[in-house]
Amino acid sequence: MNHHQAITDGPGLRLARPTPVRITEICPRDGFQNIKAFIPTAVKIAIIDRLIAAGARTLEITSMVSPKAIPQMADAADIIDHVSSHHPQVTPVVLVPNLKGAQRAHRQGIRHVSYVVSVSPAHNRANINRTHDESLADLAAIVAEFPDIQVVLTLATAFGCPFIGATSTAVMLSLIDAAVKMGIRGITLCDAIGVANPLQTERVLQAIRAAFPALDIGMHMHNTHGMALANMLVGLALGITRFETANGGLGGCPFAPGAAGNIATEDAVNMFQRMGYQTGYDLGRLIESAKTIQRHIEPNLTGSLVRSRDYREFDFIG
Amino acid sequence: MNHHQAITDGPGLRLARPTPVRITEICPRDGFQNIKAFIPTAVKIAIIDRLIAAGARTLEITSMVSPKAIPQMADAADIIDHVSSHHPQVTPVVLVPNLKGAQRAHRQGIRHVSYVVSVSPAHNRANINRTHDESLADLAAIVAEFPDIQVVLTLATAFGCPFIGATSTAVMLSLIDAAVKMGIRGITLCDAIGVANPLQTERVLQAIRAAFPALDIGMHMHNTHGMALANMLVGLALGITRFETANGGLGGCPFAPGAAGNIATEDAVNMFQRMGYQTGYDLGRLIESAKTIQRHIEPNLTGSLVRSRDYREFDFIG
Repeated sequence: MNHHQAITDGPGLRLARPTPVRITEICPRDGFQNIKAFIPTAVKIAIIDRLIAAGARTLEITSMVSPKAIPQMADAADIIDHVSSHHPQVTPVVLVPNLKGAQRAHRQGIRHVSYVVSVSPAHNRANINRTHDESLADLAAIVAEFPDIQVVLTLATAFGCPFIGATSTAVMLSLIDAAVKMGIRGITLCDAIGVANPLQTERVLQAIRAAFPALDIGMHMHNTHGMALANMLVGLALGITRFETANGGLGGCPFAPGAAGNIATEDAVNMFQRMGYQTGYDLGRLIESAKTIQRHIEPNLTGSLVRSRDYREFDFIG
Repeated sequence: MNHHQAITDGPGLRLARPTPVRITEICPRDGFQNIKAFIPTAVKIAIIDRLIAAGARTLEITSMVSPKAIPQMADAADIIDHVSSHHPQVTPVVLVPNLKGAQRAHRQGIRHVSYVVSVSPAHNRANINRTHDESLADLAAIVAEFPDIQVVLTLATAFGCPFIGATSTAVMLSLIDAAVKMGIRGITLCDAIGVANPLQTERVLQAIRAAFPALDIGMHMHNTHGMALANMLVGLALGITRFETANGGLGGCPFAPGAAGNIATEDAVNMFQRMGYQTGYDLGRLIESAKTIQRHIEPNLTGSLVRSRDYREFDFIG
């Protein structure tokens, strides 16, 4: 008993009290968007239906971008219609790159959007062709025009940028500060190239928490270097309970062909549930859904469980 | 400052002071052993040479098993000869299943061996056809006959067993107790089916630390469920500094075809180095070595960095 106490007071993993984690399923947006060939709308809808049957309650279902820029998202209106009319229990989230996108989303009844700004100025320029000031001005316009929309600020390249390498935490804090002053209450930290390490994750999260104690922080970690779950574990330890994940691990990084993409929803749910966290998901159904993606969309999924053919043999708490 | 202090005192990841980590490269034993076709001895030696050039200083180079049981290890004597005569700066470790194996290893000058006992009685029976008492009796015989050999007790199925599911921490502690009473000073916890979760890892490590504060504990984690680095992070946080890893992630689990095997040395080194831990490895050379394995032995490696073709684009500390 004394020994145990001594160890608990020393270094180690101090988890916040286990609470339900909130998973935003992003396969229908971030996953599908990275597939070159157009996925028939009926297939997209079939996957979305399976994800909801597996327990997904918040899903980023599409993106309000120009169909010329991203043809895969050309059926955004149909996807929104389907989810709104068939799944009233679900919170659909739509990514909007600008005010026009928010207007389109709002017209279709969408009340939750994510709005992307890259911490790296070079990446913000490459991704949406804007300066930080231009991005913030459009965000202010969205917030002003739609007080009934809940906007989450998605901070791309929060842990590093393929163009400039390290990104600035000070710049990130100033972007968050501007958003909070507009009334934004949630942000999502994105590591789309998957380079964050656990110590860096802890430092970034602590810096944001110190400056904005009431902010709802989400994590969107890619598994390029295999560190996504380790980084999410650090988030859990610091009380983060919102995570964006993609069924099957779909959604690569255009700068790392062949590499793993988003952390797979089923891999995250597996870790959370084995640790005693509630997720609301049925793991077996999630894996079935990933296998549907494997059959109809992308045979080479990078998620761990979907690659392990006999995962059920290990379906026990050790 | 106050905010930061408050967070530091609350939940979170409390890392022990960064120290050099000690990596035992196990690709030549655990990796090669899982390849069906015999790997020519010259190829094995070429990989071992590359690993040493990349910084490996402790390597489990082969196994003293019957060539009938595991034909891949039939060239054990040649491998030992090569390493002993060409790489005096290296500590070669040999896996021995029994006293006879220890005798053979000792005759060739080996002074570091790992001896495997499964925490699961059913797995110990299936793996080496013994009861725990029989395994411990042979371990006692090895220790008595070779006081100049340093034996590490390798505890298989430390986090779960493919036959019985959960394994008993009490049984594990009693096996360790028996070994410590013989004079054993090091153990390695193995999760060859890769099911351990971070909370379980913390509990098992804390239980062992509480009972055996002076014991040198190593971790051997497979990445079947993608949780290996998260579990190793928990180990780091609790002061564990010895890890067994396999270049390229070679070495599957016979019970999980298609699944990831050992955590890849380069993936572990990448995480450690980005966190500021010294490993003694050159990451670029490790990846080159993994690509040699990919070309000559196994095209479908499951390590993260070796699958990411352009990993160098992300070679920065974010």
